Amino acid sequence: MSLGPGFRSFIPEEAIRALDAAEVVFGYKTYLDLIADLLAGKQVFSSGMRREVERCGQAIDQALAGKSVALVSSGDAGIYGMAGLVLDICRKRDLAVAESGVDSTEGGVDLFLKIVPGIPAFNAAASLAGAPLMHDFAAVSLSDHLTPWEIIEKRLRAAAAADFVLAIYNPRSKSRPDLLEKAREILLGERSPQTPVAIIRRAMREGQWKCVTTLGGMPVEEVDMQSVVIVGNSSTYMWKGWMVTPRGYLDKYEL
Amino acid sequence: MSLGPGFRSFIPEEAIRALDAAEVVFGYKTYLDLIADLLAGKQVFSSGMRREVERCGQAIDQALAGKSVALVSSGDAGIYGMAGLVLDICRKRDLAVAESGVDSTEGGVDLFLKIVPGIPAFNAAASLAGAPLMHDFAAVSLSDHLTPWEIIEKRLRAAAAADFVLAIYNPRSKSRPDLLEKAREILLGERSPQTPVAIIRRAMREGQWKCVTTLGGMPVEEVDMQSVVIVGNSSTYMWKGWMVTPRGYLDKYEL
Repeated sequence: MSLGPGFRSFIPEEAIRALDAAEVVFGYKTYLDLIADLLAGKQVFSSGMRREVERCGQAIDQALAGKSVALVSSGDAGIYGMAGLVLDICRKRDLAVAESGVDSTEGGVDLFLKIVPGIPAFNAAASLAGAPLMHDFAAVSLSDHLTPWEIIEKRLRAAAAADFVLAIYNPRSKSRPDLLEKAREILLGERSPQTPVAIIRRAMREGQWKCVTTLGGMPVEEVDMQSVVIVGNSSTYMWKGWMVTPRGYLDKYEL
Repeated sequence: MSLGPGFRSFIPEEAIRALDAAEVVFGYKTYLDLIADLLAGKQVFSSGMRREVERCGQAIDQALAGKSVALVSSGDAGIYGMAGLVLDICRKRDLAVAESGVDSTEGGVDLFLKIVPGIPAFNAAASLAGAPLMHDFAAVSLSDHLTPWEIIEKRLRAAAAADFVLAIYNPRSKSRPDLLEKAREILLGERSPQTPVAIIRRAMREGQWKCVTTLGGMPVEEVDMQSVVIVGNSSTYMWKGWMVTPRGYLDKYEL
């Protein structure tokens, strides 16, 4: 299930209900800390980064043991979250997984699964910058932990060449502080240095910070793993601190 | 402000509060009908499709007249919604727009704006299909009403060639029923006919319907303007009715 960007007021009732119904809750510690008060009386398994396979496997074990389990992702569980890994593991273990709430008259279901969507991090970030995602966009994670850098590079180049707005996830880690700079060099091969860029750190969380800048002038050192970087397309403009990608209405219609 | 996909349980408190605070509400009729009971006592301006410029202009007029105004988009207001057009119009009219909640000690602010994000339609759709958006993805609208078809075609080709998962908005209208078929032909130039595809109609609304199929075999005639079509990348698999794009965890880690 999805927690959204962070602040409680962005978690819809559907997610609160899923948490309420759970006897056991799994998640990355930083995210569970955001909802600590909702976890009273529940068995809570929190773990650190890069323990995703173990965490999802244990969540599945608990569900197979008959427990009602919530596995928490921040943002949307279906975007760089845990929804896919749960299904990957179920498939590898050859489990029969049915959709929650669907009658299973055939029987033989090992576990019922419901994926609860949430507000993705890049939408929360975009709303703070203005309206940069109003036209076709691409999301690319710069993490080369599971994806070869050549593929990431190819996607950045293709998206820039086809004039997509870009939402960049995992832009800069402590262990790989150079990835964003490499990405910027690639994008500058296809886009003007004047292209508007928004950096949004910790959108809708304590410590929220943002900056609307340009591809040529962006302060790369301000970016961390809790940031989303949005790079405009060739029509995106900056205006009084807002970053906007027009969809084209005012080219077609009179005011 | 954003309404999310439809069902009330997916509207976060932040959006409910924005509606509560509004004296005047603007929106597309179909979306306002979803929240009719929340509109009691408010002045409501609902309009049809293709009246977006007029609707946003009137909403700005009301705000300039001192009213507290909510302009409603379904899904996320920042994704093919109304957030950008509001800023476009304010810029054209040379209005001073400040962020709601930010102190404006400099004065001279014409109106205060807050963009409330919501769960986008494609995330709601993806959650019903499984986890198709777990890796880098691109969103493309097939509407050629404001965007030349050549640009749409270029983006589809680039996204397919760089192995993005694709979320297709506005896939098939009554007036242009052939657009999805044209898009499919383009994608088949870069992707196997076996590529998994999900069609999700009216996700999280009355009449919800979905189908997990393939690019070669997809029932194009089932798709309408209230559908999202998700096309997998080269790693996406179908398994017992679920569509999943693996992020690569199980290639790297043992179960």
